[in-house]
Order: sequence, then C-alpha cells, then structure tokens
Amino acid sequence: MAFQGEIGAFSEEAALLFFGPSIIARPFRSLPEVFDVVEKADVEAGIVPVENSLEGSINQTYDLLLGSKLKVCGEVVLRISHCLIANKRINLDSIKKVYSHPQALAQCRKFLDRLGSELIPTYDTAGSVKMLKENKLKDSGAIASFRAAKIYGMKTLVRNIEDDENNYTRFFILSKNDSPLTGNDKTSIIFSAKNIPGALYSSLKEFAIRKINLTRIESRPTRRTPWEYNFYLDFEGHKTEKKCQRALVALSKKTEFMKVLGSYHKWELS
Amino acid sequence: MAFQGEIGAFSEEAALLFFGPSIIARPFRSLPEVFDVVEKADVEAGIVPVENSLEGSINQTYDLLLGSKLKVCGEVVLRISHCLIANKRINLDSIKKVYSHPQALAQCRKFLDRLGSELIPTYDTAGSVKMLKENKLKDSGAIASFRAAKIYGMKTLVRNIEDDENNYTRFFILSKNDSPLTGNDKTSIIFSAKNIPGALYSSLKEFAIRKINLTRIESRPTRRTPWEYNFYLDFEGHKTEKKCQRALVALSKKTEFMKVLGSYHKWELS
Repeated sequence: MAFQGEIGAFSEEAALLFFGPSIIARPFRSLPEVFDVVEKADVEAGIVPVENSLEGSINQTYDLLLGSKLKVCGEVVLRISHCLIANKRINLDSIKKVYSHPQALAQCRKFLDRLGSELIPTYDTAGSVKMLKENKLKDSGAIASFRAAKIYGMKTLVRNIEDDENNYTRFFILSKNDSPLTGNDKTSIIFSAKNIPGALYSSLKEFAIRKINLTRIESRPTRRTPWEYNFYLDFEGHKTEKKCQRALVALSKKTEFMKVLGSYHKWELS
Repeated sequence: MAFQGEIGAFSEEAALLFFGPSIIARPFRSLPEVFDVVEKADVEAGIVPVENSLEGSINQTYDLLLGSKLKVCGEVVLRISHCLIANKRINLDSIKKVYSHPQALAQCRKFLDRLGSELIPTYDTAGSVKMLKENKLKDSGAIASFRAAKIYGMKTLVRNIEDDENNYTRFFILSKNDSPLTGNDKTSIIFSAKNIPGALYSSLKEFAIRKINLTRIESRPTRRTPWEYNFYLDFEGHKTEKKCQRALVALSKKTEFMKVLGSYHKWELS
C-alpha cells in the first residue's frame, strides 16, 4: 500500500495500525501520487490524512477525493505524539535550530518557546530526521514521531513535547473496492446544494427524519464558481442499509451533484 | 488600521479597496498580532483574510475569531492576480528560482511548470519581492501582486500568471464597534451543535423556516474534545432585523454555545 511522506511518517504508522505489521508500505512524495498509484493498481491500497483534531481538515485530500474514482474503504485514527530528535551524542543544550513540518512546529509551540531555538519549516516530519542524519548536523534537532527516531537510528532527546494531548489524525484507506457491511459502519459522501434558501437544511433533513447521525460536515469551494461549495458529509450507517439507501436516493434528487465516497467500518479508539 | 504581511500585501490592497486611499495601513507579522493591536486600541480597525474562492477557509482566522471580543463590522472581496516580479534589468530567461507563499506558488502551477525553475516557499508574497530587492538576486523571481512590484520599484516580467481567474479572497474588517443596518447586510455567527442526531439540522431549521438565506457554513474542531466542532455560519440580514433576532434567540436555546461575530454591509463585486 502507498502513503505520503518519508519512511517513518505518521501516515505509515497509521497504515501499520490499520493493516497490521506485515503490510508492505511504500512512500510517495505527494498526495496526488498516492491517489495515482492506487488508481493504476500499482498498489492495492493507499492511506491519506483527512482531518486532525486540532488543525481541522486536510484540504488537499478533500479536493483529491472529489476527482477520484477510488473508494473510501476504511478509516483509522492515530494519536499524534511528537519527540525532539537529534543525532547520537548530541545533547539538548547544543540544539540551536529545529526542523519540522509547519504543523508539527505549531503543535509544539510552548516547548519550542522555552527552548528558544530557530525554527525551520520543512516538507515532512520524518524527512527532517533523515536530513539531520544525512547531513550529520550537530546544532540541530527535528520534530517527528518516536518511531521515526528508531527507524533512522537517532536519539530521542524529549518525548511528548506537544502542547495539547488531544492530538489525533484521522486517515482514509483508499482502494478500488467497496467495504462490506459490518454493522458498525460510516459512509462518506460529497454533494453540492442548489443555491436556494434552505438548500443545505433541506438536504440534511433526509438524514434527520431517518435518525441517521451525522458525524462530520465540511464545505469546500467548488473551484468552478466563486463562493459555491461542495459539502462533505460523514454519517453513521452503511450505504447498503435500507434507511441509508433511502436517504441517499432522496438527497440525490435535491442536489446538483452527489457522490458516495464509500462505506467502511467505524474506527474505535482503543 | 492593521493588516498581516509586508507592505504591498493583498491584505493591504483589500484595506485600501474598503476604506479608500487615504487610510493609514500598518503591517504586522502575524494574524494574532492584528487581533491584538485592535483589541488594545492601538489602531481603529484590522483586516484579516477569511476565505479564498479556490483554497477555502483561512483556518487561523476562524480560530482567532472564536477567542476574540472584536466585532466583524465589514467584508471586502479582492480579486487575486499574480505577477512574476524580478529586479530591474533581469529577463525571464535568467530566472532559475521563484520565491513566494506556498498558496501563490500552487495557484500558478501551470505557468511555473512551463518555466521549469526551482520553487522556494516563503512567508509572504510581497515579502519575497522585498527580499529579492534587498539581496539584489539576479537569478530569481517572486510571485506577488502588480502593486507590490510598483511599491518596491521592481520589474513585472509577466502579469496574470494564475491558473484560474476565479481567484478571490474575502476579508473581514474587525473593530470594537458594531456596524449599523444598511438594508443589504450579512451576519456571521459561531455555534456548537449538541451531539445528538439531527442537531445541526435542527439548528439550521431556525433560518430555513424564516427564509433567511445561508451564504456559508464551515466547521472547525473545538480544540477541547477531539471530533467536536464549532460551526461558523454567515447569513443574509442584520442582527437587529426582527426575523434575524428571532432566529438567533431560537438558535441560542438549541446550542451549547453561540456567539454573534457581527453584522455588516454585504460586499458587491464591481
């Protein structure tokens, strides 16, 4: 299966959590490449981040889902915990610069303020660890997962440096195939509401009257017409269940555009 | 009034469009600083980006609005058009590197692919022009507005290099004071729906039954509990109008939390 980022990325960790330790996970540079290799059947599945409990939606994933034929066939939620990582024999007081993805730097702001070192935004968390190692940097640290430190044989200076422990990222598993009914499922769809007063309200009615619980709603610009939006909706239930089917049929009559991304087993945090 | 970015930033241009050319606009490094100086009354008003027609919401602005006592007292929509800018006497074929904000680079992808130069993400569009000038770079260009090129006395190599001409950014004007009824107004609110089936639907009902048109809905994580969301809603009408007042009173009884950000005159694109 395919993930975005370097070996040791949180996406790879989420894939191992979902599929188990025997899965072969291949890294790709960008999210469009992950969609691409699954569509071309070079790999069986892909994993992509959808939202973070602190930062909100991953906009690029939402935009790519709109144009893709792939099915969302699973979800997995990973607790994000950051470490300050350095080359071996380097101590905390020699760290003058810290490299990481801008979101990781933002999530460790309190720790970094106390440390007082220069912050350098990079492409990727695990990629920053790799870069420290390859360039044998002695005055620099990187923020990434404990697992990334292990993989690259680096030293973890401080664990759990994130400001807020309620830091979770939700991922979608993408493949060419649907997921069967398990009895504890969620379904993700995209639709555009017609531009009339109450259009969104009227769309949501089809779920409310059938007591179908919405777990998420997100709007994204259509990119065709300014200030026109597509809505991304997650609800409880499988698309093959009768009440869900009826809601989807009724909704499709009210919307200009509707797409079912897929139904999948609901992830339970352990 | 205060804006985020360097002199020549799109936010400054939007401020001039809203207030007219005699306004004194002061640059600040970050959005929290803009909120701060308006709250401390160091300036009379601030301008902050809320959403872009291609990229979607500016998450940081939404998060800052939640914690601020300031009123949204105006909106303005600016057409975003990008230029490739360089030092004087530099021609297009000497450009090996292009500096700009990651969003500006992404919005000019087709042009940049043809150009084939190295892309270097920076903090700010206008700031990249300033940096080119200060360092007298001869092999580099920056992507920013035509106005930024003029301000820094730089050369515009190519105008309108954006992929998609439907590129608009909407800004909020923040101040300590409310805006009066004009007869063509919008109101922005934040609320959290209780976590029961149909809670959002039931909230939107208060607008639908009064034929109040919703122009925008956006969800953001609450940052208190993972996967709990605040909803940001814009609707047509002023909070002092009777039907809007009734909808807001009814909504406040259904929500755990509700905050009216402000009512303001609706911006019409000329």
